Amino acid sequence: MLVKTPTQSLSAQLAARFAERIATGLLAPGARLPSIRLCAQQQGVSPSTVVAAYDQLLAQGLVEAHRHRGFYIRNRALALIDKALPAINSDIGNAPNTMPASGFAAQHVPVNATALIRGMFQGGSDKPQPGLGVFPPDWLDTPFLPGAIRRVTSGPQLKAFSLQYGEPAGDAGLRQALSARLNTLAIAASSEQIITTVGATHALDIVSRTLLRAGDCVMVEEPGWAIEFARLDALGMRILPVPRGPDGPDLAVMARYCELHSPKLFVSVSVLHNPTGYCLSPASAHRLLQLANAHNFVIVEDDTYSHLAPEHATRLSALDGLQRTIYVSGFSKILVPGWRVGFLAAPTHLYEQLLDTKLLATLTTPALLEKALAWCIDQGQLRRHAQQVRTRLDQARGRSVTLALAAGCTFVAPPAGLFGWVDTGVDTDALAQRMLDKGYLLAPGSLFHATRAPGTLMRINFCTTQDTAFWQMFKTVRACM
Amino acid sequence: MLVKTPTQSLSAQLAARFAERIATGLLAPGARLPSIRLCAQQQGVSPSTVVAAYDQLLAQGLVEAHRHRGFYIRNRALALIDKALPAINSDIGNAPNTMPASGFAAQHVPVNATALIRGMFQGGSDKPQPGLGVFPPDWLDTPFLPGAIRRVTSGPQLKAFSLQYGEPAGDAGLRQALSARLNTLAIAASSEQIITTVGATHALDIVSRTLLRAGDCVMVEEPGWAIEFARLDALGMRILPVPRGPDGPDLAVMARYCELHSPKLFVSVSVLHNPTGYCLSPASAHRLLQLANAHNFVIVEDDTYSHLAPEHATRLSALDGLQRTIYVSGFSKILVPGWRVGFLAAPTHLYEQLLDTKLLATLTTPALLEKALAWCIDQGQLRRHAQQVRTRLDQARGRSVTLALAAGCTFVAPPAGLFGWVDTGVDTDALAQRMLDKGYLLAPGSLFHATRAPGTLMRINFCTTQDTAFWQMFKTVRACM
Repeated sequence: MLVKTPTQSLSAQLAARFAERIATGLLAPGARLPSIRLCAQQQGVSPSTVVAAYDQLLAQGLVEAHRHRGFYIRNRALALIDKALPAINSDIGNAPNTMPASGFAAQHVPVNATALIRGMFQGGSDKPQPGLGVFPPDWLDTPFLPGAIRRVTSGPQLKAFSLQYGEPAGDAGLRQALSARLNTLAIAASSEQIITTVGATHALDIVSRTLLRAGDCVMVEEPGWAIEFARLDALGMRILPVPRGPDGPDLAVMARYCELHSPKLFVSVSVLHNPTGYCLSPASAHRLLQLANAHNFVIVEDDTYSHLAPEHATRLSALDGLQRTIYVSGFSKILVPGWRVGFLAAPTHLYEQLLDTKLLATLTTPALLEKALAWCIDQGQLRRHAQQVRTRLDQARGRSVTLALAAGCTFVAPPAGLFGWVDTGVDTDALAQRMLDKGYLLAPGSLFHATRAPGTLMRINFCTTQDTAFWQMFKTVRACM
Repeated sequence: MLVKTPTQSLSAQLAARFAERIATGLLAPGARLPSIRLCAQQQGVSPSTVVAAYDQLLAQGLVEAHRHRGFYIRNRALALIDKALPAINSDIGNAPNTMPASGFAAQHVPVNATALIRGMFQGGSDKPQPGLGVFPPDWLDTPFLPGAIRRVTSGPQLKAFSLQYGEPAGDAGLRQALSARLNTLAIAASSEQIITTVGATHALDIVSRTLLRAGDCVMVEEPGWAIEFARLDALGMRILPVPRGPDGPDLAVMARYCELHSPKLFVSVSVLHNPTGYCLSPASAHRLLQLANAHNFVIVEDDTYSHLAPEHATRLSALDGLQRTIYVSGFSKILVPGWRVGFLAAPTHLYEQLLDTKLLATLTTPALLEKALAWCIDQGQLRRHAQQVRTRLDQARGRSVTLALAAGCTFVAPPAGLFGWVDTGVDTDALAQRMLDKGYLLAPGSLFHATRAPGTLMRINFCTTQDTAFWQMFKTVRACM
């Protein structure tokens, strides 16, 4: 609710609010501002206040007016470049010189995906955020972290892990601990097949950069993780979206892609797929690997939610024996996101190339944090902690599901893992903007689609949707749409 | 010296030695093995032993025989792929299907550069390594590290820096400390212009990925840092080498490149240039910036050796006010290589794009280590430590220069900073291979050239060339060439 203050008019406050969302990308280039009348109604101000606010945004170069059609967000890069030195023109970087007439949404996936991520980290609101992709920090709190840090920082340890670059492949102790853990998942990977990374994100980045060249075709699951689309797009890859069903990816679609485009890589979340929570069936896994063999593509299996997975979940890397699958996971979801430790396990014949890419991108990664994490794994602390988190998550999921159903949502996929994939019955892009006015960050379904197609779905985080206050506000806002 | 053992014949030992160097890339694809006669003489074995060893390498697919011309190292990737599954063919990744008839050396820059880097980290020998690009660990040892770590790991600090992802741009405390430090170098950069990274390497990687697309032209200094050539090559850029002179880059060559190729970026080490030690003159800096303005390219100024720099050294970022320069530096050379903390400071209009690239590559970077480093800077500890290192380095340089001159080397550039750029009078590629037999890793001049052109120059590290034993061996080996 906007309230006039001695120092800032209502229109200035409204303009500032829109400007901030444009700056952070939460209002995407090409998006239309609400009509004057609707905005006035939503914000509880007069239409003339809205007109004044929109005029300010126009003057700032953040929006443009299309005759009879309303106000549209300009490309943020263009707007910024307008303000920069005259000699620096827009062909620096990837800012287009002119707004393309079509295909605009797809082209601007990166802005939107990184905006979601930045929203995840901004924490401007003290409310639980249903759009978050992570556990709240208090869920990850454990009594054993200080001990782990002490082990790597006391006496000569601190020097050993600080004054040298460390091994290019990553700390040998952690790689051994990871090899042992992978064996418990029936994935045979020696420590010489493992490379540590700056979180699973970095591992996926290394794989993309090593196996693909600009213009190459890559298959990704849809719905899927927005950052993956954005990264591949930024690297200049051609994205081939594959529908993801309850048992696995649509193999008929994949076979057709293989015939037409010879994709080099398939990026897949086998277990607790984001956002659906689906787990790959053994039969699907087998047929998928047959397809990969027949058409000679590599699969990168993103097992980010590994520690939340049901026992005996099927992983491609286990069936395949890491012959043409690269396994990726990390510890940001379950223990220490701030330490940024992830890893990949790769077929022997791809290992050296992947290691070279890591070297060119970051040289090495911090051995101190890797060694501390190895201790958490070796002592069984991480396993026990993960068990506790799963139990707590099961309870949270039960509560959230009840509340979501009571609020009139339906589950598109059976609730599992950290995320629910729900149908709200209304356009979730518009819903997300309105809920943002109320202090809630949502993850609308369009973020999980390569083409950003709008729709009525959204992803909810079961940890942060347990309170009735959110669902009450959700129902109120939806009723006005 | 090879000695026969009950378990391994001389020929097997010799073959194993070559195989290891091929595996680590220290013998590059396309390189020729010594003739049978020369190898026998060098190793003190019979020609028939060498013939047997070369036959083993042939059988392993590591070398190939060219009739009347000798044995050549095969492409490592091809050799490995031969051993892999039949269905996985060589068009995965960037392994060429066939050996190109020409231009082979340039194409394989990545293998060689990463080999040098891996050699830097392997530490298989207990001798001081003249080819190293870093300070030996004992030079970086300081009494204040434990205190810095305690500050970020005691009580609630540890949770604050572990259980959340942290700010996308990097720890705010470190960014403020960096802003203050840059101000002392006359570079006006607010903390909102700074992005922390996984070492300076990551910062350079982010800049390349953000501003360039595959096929773009980029100017780099020659001689220059091998990893930079290798990274740009791996990203698919067209490298335009610019001769680096005592005062700065050759501006006439740059102007010609601008007319012909419209390069988008120039990568430059202004101060204590690697490998020459040259520092940019104020007049060169001014003209270089004029050229950049006229031809609209961006400059990334790599100030990796910032803490060793002479006072009042000229930096482009200071003259330009971060309008079209991006400043890059880090702490791996002076304090804690294992923590992998670097950063960039960028013009405001490029900042958001660069931050998006960081997000897509690693999400965030470890705030715990960044905060500890901020404390070292804020307390003045780092400044005092750097002063001590510079004093010690001055003494080491004096000794090394005397020994190098006495060994018959001449300095191509006046000795300054960490590295000496010397002329040995013999081919340093061949010299490096022979010194490796004696346990010394050298950095031959070809590594600092985009085309890997061989020559008689090499880079020495003043810290690790203070002992007479190395120079004695150097003289002995060179005398046999």
